[in-house]
Amino acid sequence: MDDTKRVIAPKGFRFATTGAAIKRQGRKDIGLILSDTVAVVAGAFTTNRVKAAPVRLCMQKIKTGKGRAIIVNSGNANACTGKQGMADARKILSLVSKKLGMPASLAYMSSTGVIGTPLPMEKIVPALDSLVEEMGRSSLADVAASIMTTDTFPKMVHKRVKIGNSIGTVSGICKGAGMIAPNMATMLCFLLTDIAVQGKTLDRTVKNSVAKSFNRITIDGDMSTNDTVLMMSNGALGNEPIGPASEYRNAFVDAVEEVLYGLSRLVAKDGEGATKLVEVVVKGAANEAVALRAAMAVANSSLVKTAIYGNDANWGRIMAALGYSGIRFTEEKTDISFGNVKVVKKGLATGRDDEAARVMKSKELRVTIDLHAGSASVNVLTCDLTEDYIRINAEYRT
Amino acid sequence: MDDTKRVIAPKGFRFATTGAAIKRQGRKDIGLILSDTVAVVAGAFTTNRVKAAPVRLCMQKIKTGKGRAIIVNSGNANACTGKQGMADARKILSLVSKKLGMPASLAYMSSTGVIGTPLPMEKIVPALDSLVEEMGRSSLADVAASIMTTDTFPKMVHKRVKIGNSIGTVSGICKGAGMIAPNMATMLCFLLTDIAVQGKTLDRTVKNSVAKSFNRITIDGDMSTNDTVLMMSNGALGNEPIGPASEYRNAFVDAVEEVLYGLSRLVAKDGEGATKLVEVVVKGAANEAVALRAAMAVANSSLVKTAIYGNDANWGRIMAALGYSGIRFTEEKTDISFGNVKVVKKGLATGRDDEAARVMKSKELRVTIDLHAGSASVNVLTCDLTEDYIRINAEYRT
Repeated sequence: MDDTKRVIAPKGFRFATTGAAIKRQGRKDIGLILSDTVAVVAGAFTTNRVKAAPVRLCMQKIKTGKGRAIIVNSGNANACTGKQGMADARKILSLVSKKLGMPASLAYMSSTGVIGTPLPMEKIVPALDSLVEEMGRSSLADVAASIMTTDTFPKMVHKRVKIGNSIGTVSGICKGAGMIAPNMATMLCFLLTDIAVQGKTLDRTVKNSVAKSFNRITIDGDMSTNDTVLMMSNGALGNEPIGPASEYRNAFVDAVEEVLYGLSRLVAKDGEGATKLVEVVVKGAANEAVALRAAMAVANSSLVKTAIYGNDANWGRIMAALGYSGIRFTEEKTDISFGNVKVVKKGLATGRDDEAARVMKSKELRVTIDLHAGSASVNVLTCDLTEDYIRINAEYRT
Repeated sequence: MDDTKRVIAPKGFRFATTGAAIKRQGRKDIGLILSDTVAVVAGAFTTNRVKAAPVRLCMQKIKTGKGRAIIVNSGNANACTGKQGMADARKILSLVSKKLGMPASLAYMSSTGVIGTPLPMEKIVPALDSLVEEMGRSSLADVAASIMTTDTFPKMVHKRVKIGNSIGTVSGICKGAGMIAPNMATMLCFLLTDIAVQGKTLDRTVKNSVAKSFNRITIDGDMSTNDTVLMMSNGALGNEPIGPASEYRNAFVDAVEEVLYGLSRLVAKDGEGATKLVEVVVKGAANEAVALRAAMAVANSSLVKTAIYGNDANWGRIMAALGYSGIRFTEEKTDISFGNVKVVKKGLATGRDDEAARVMKSKELRVTIDLHAGSASVNVLTCDLTEDYIRINAEYRT
C-alpha cells in the first residue's frame, strides 16, 4: 500500500477537495478533478436497473465524448431520490462550472454513500466556493481520500508509458470496499492520462479493461446503484492521438489494464472486514464463460469465504459451489489446490488438508480449480468473509 | 418451538437411534425409521450437480416407489467420496436390512456433515447391531435429534387429517441450519404418514409441496450435495388409497403442505447464527416467476441481511437488490414496508425509517415489496446475517 502514497498525476490536471460535513464533520468529502483543457472522456456504468441520479446524468453527458471536470462526493449516493436527485446533481454541476468559467456540459458528477436520502444541498452549496478556491492545492491522493466510505485506505495506482520520446502517465484512483460484485458494485474509479487518445479507442480500452478487472472482483455478491468508471485523456503530452492502428496503442492499453487490475487488487484486499486477498483461478475449462461462471460461484460462496477466513481447507464447499454454479463438469476429473497444495485430485481427497491449512494463513491466497475439460482459464479476485463484514454493514447507517 | 417436543408419529412406524462417534463422542448420530409394512415412497433430491453417494443411491432405489426403512447419519455427508462412498452406503443398507430381515432394496440412506471424507466404517458397522437392537425404543423426536448438525433445536411438525371416520397423521422431521438455499441445500427431511396414498399422487404432492416450502427458503445462497426429502406412506390407517380423484386428496395435500411449510419456518428461524426469521414478500408482480426472482435477490443479499440484523431500515439496499435481480420494474412505482411501516412510497423515502427500526427489533420480520405491476405474489423465508454465522462456518471443521 506504500506506493499508493506516491501516486503521480498526469500533466495538465489539477485537484481540489473540501469538507461539507455531508455525513459527518471533520473530513474532506467532496473532490474535484479538473483538466486544463477539454479532454476526451469515456466511461462504464452500473448495470443495476436502479441507477443513481449522477449515473444517469453521466450517461447522458458522456455521449459528447468530451469533458473537463469531475466532481465527486462521498457520504450520500443520491440514489432513489427521484426528480429532486437529478435537479440537485444538475445544480451542483452548474454552480461549479460557473465558478470555474466553463460550460456545465463539460462537468461530470459521481456520488457514493447512503441510498434514498436527498443530498444535503444546504451543506454542499456553500462548500462549493471553498472547493473551487482550493483548486490546485490538493493532490490526486487527496481526491482519492475524499471519496472513501468504508474503505480503510485510499486506492491509487499509476503507470508510466513511453510514447515516442516522451513519457506519458496513466493514473487511477478508486473507492471500493463493500458491495463489490460482478459488474463493479459501489465502485467509483477515475482514470486520468496526459496521453492523447482518440475517442473510440479510449472508450473501447476502458470498457474492455473494466471487463477484465473490476467485473472480476466480488466481495458480497451485491451490486450498487452508483458504480462509475470515468476516464479523461487531455493530450497534454502532445502526442499524435492514439487510434486503433497506432504503434503505441498496445502500450497504452496495457497501461490502462495494469492500472485497473492494480486498483482491483486493492479493492478486493480492502473488502469490508477482509483479512485476506483471495484469487480464485478456474482453469482447464471448455471456454471462458464456463470458467468465469465457476469462479464467480466459488468466489461468491459465503461458506467458502468463511472457511478461508478460518484457515480451513474445506474443499467440499468449493465442490458444492461448482455443483450449483450451473456449469457442466466432471467431479471425477476435478483438481483443487490451496496455494501449491493439491487437496483434491480427480475428485477425491489427497489427505493434505492440514498442510493446506498452513498455506492458508498467508495474507494472499490463490485457490486453483482445474476442471481438466479444456484450456480456458479465468481469475477472479475476492476476499474472506469475517465478523467485521457483519459489524460494518449492520452499523453502516446507525 | 415447544410443540416440536410433542410430535406425534403416524401408526405403523418404529424408530431407533444410536451413537457411532462419527464426528464426536457422546451423541446419537445414526437414526433409523422403519415401517411395519412395505410403504409407498416418494422423494425430491438436490439439483446440485455434485451429489453425495446416498443421494445417488436413493435416486436409483426410489424408481420402485417402495420402501420400509430409512437410515440416516450425521457427522459425515459421504459426498465427494467416489466409488468407495457408494460401496460404503450399499454395505450399510445391506447389513441393516439383513439384521431387520428384509430385502436391501427396501432400505434408503441419507447422510449429512462434512464433505470429502469417507464414512468411518470401522465405527459405523459395529454400531449397526445396537441400532437394530434398539428398534422401537426411540421416538421420532429422537431421530430428529440424531440428524442435527449445526441446528440448535430438532425440527418436527405433525398434522392430523380426518379421512372418513378415522384420523390419519402426517409427520415430518428435518435438519437445516446453514447452506439452505434455493432448492433446499443441506436439508434432510423425512415425512411419514399412515394414510394410504397412491404412488403418483404421493410423488406429485411431495414435489409440489417442496417447491412451495423448502425451495423458498434461503440462508446463505449455497446449495448442498446432500439435500433429500423422502416420504413414506404405509397405509396403516386402512383407508382407500388416495388418488387424484379422491375426496380426501385436498385435505391430504393441505396437510403435507402445512407440515413442510412449518418445517421451512423452523429451518429459516434456525439459520446459522440467525437472530430473526425474515419473510420477504414480493407482491404486485407481473407473474410469479418475477416475484420469486425479486424476492430471492432480496433474501439472498448479504447487505440486506446485515442491515436487518442491525435493525436498520436500510431500504436502499433492497432497492439495489431489486435493481440487480434481473427483473424489469419501475423504481418510481415501488413501495417497501418493514412490518406495517411503509418506508418507501413510489420509489421515494417516506421518512419513517426510525419508526421502522423499532418494528425491526421483533424476532419475526416481514419485508413487503409492492411492485405495482400486476397481481402475482411470492413469499420467501430467510434470516438475518450475523457474526455468529461467520463464527460457526469458520470453525465448522476445526
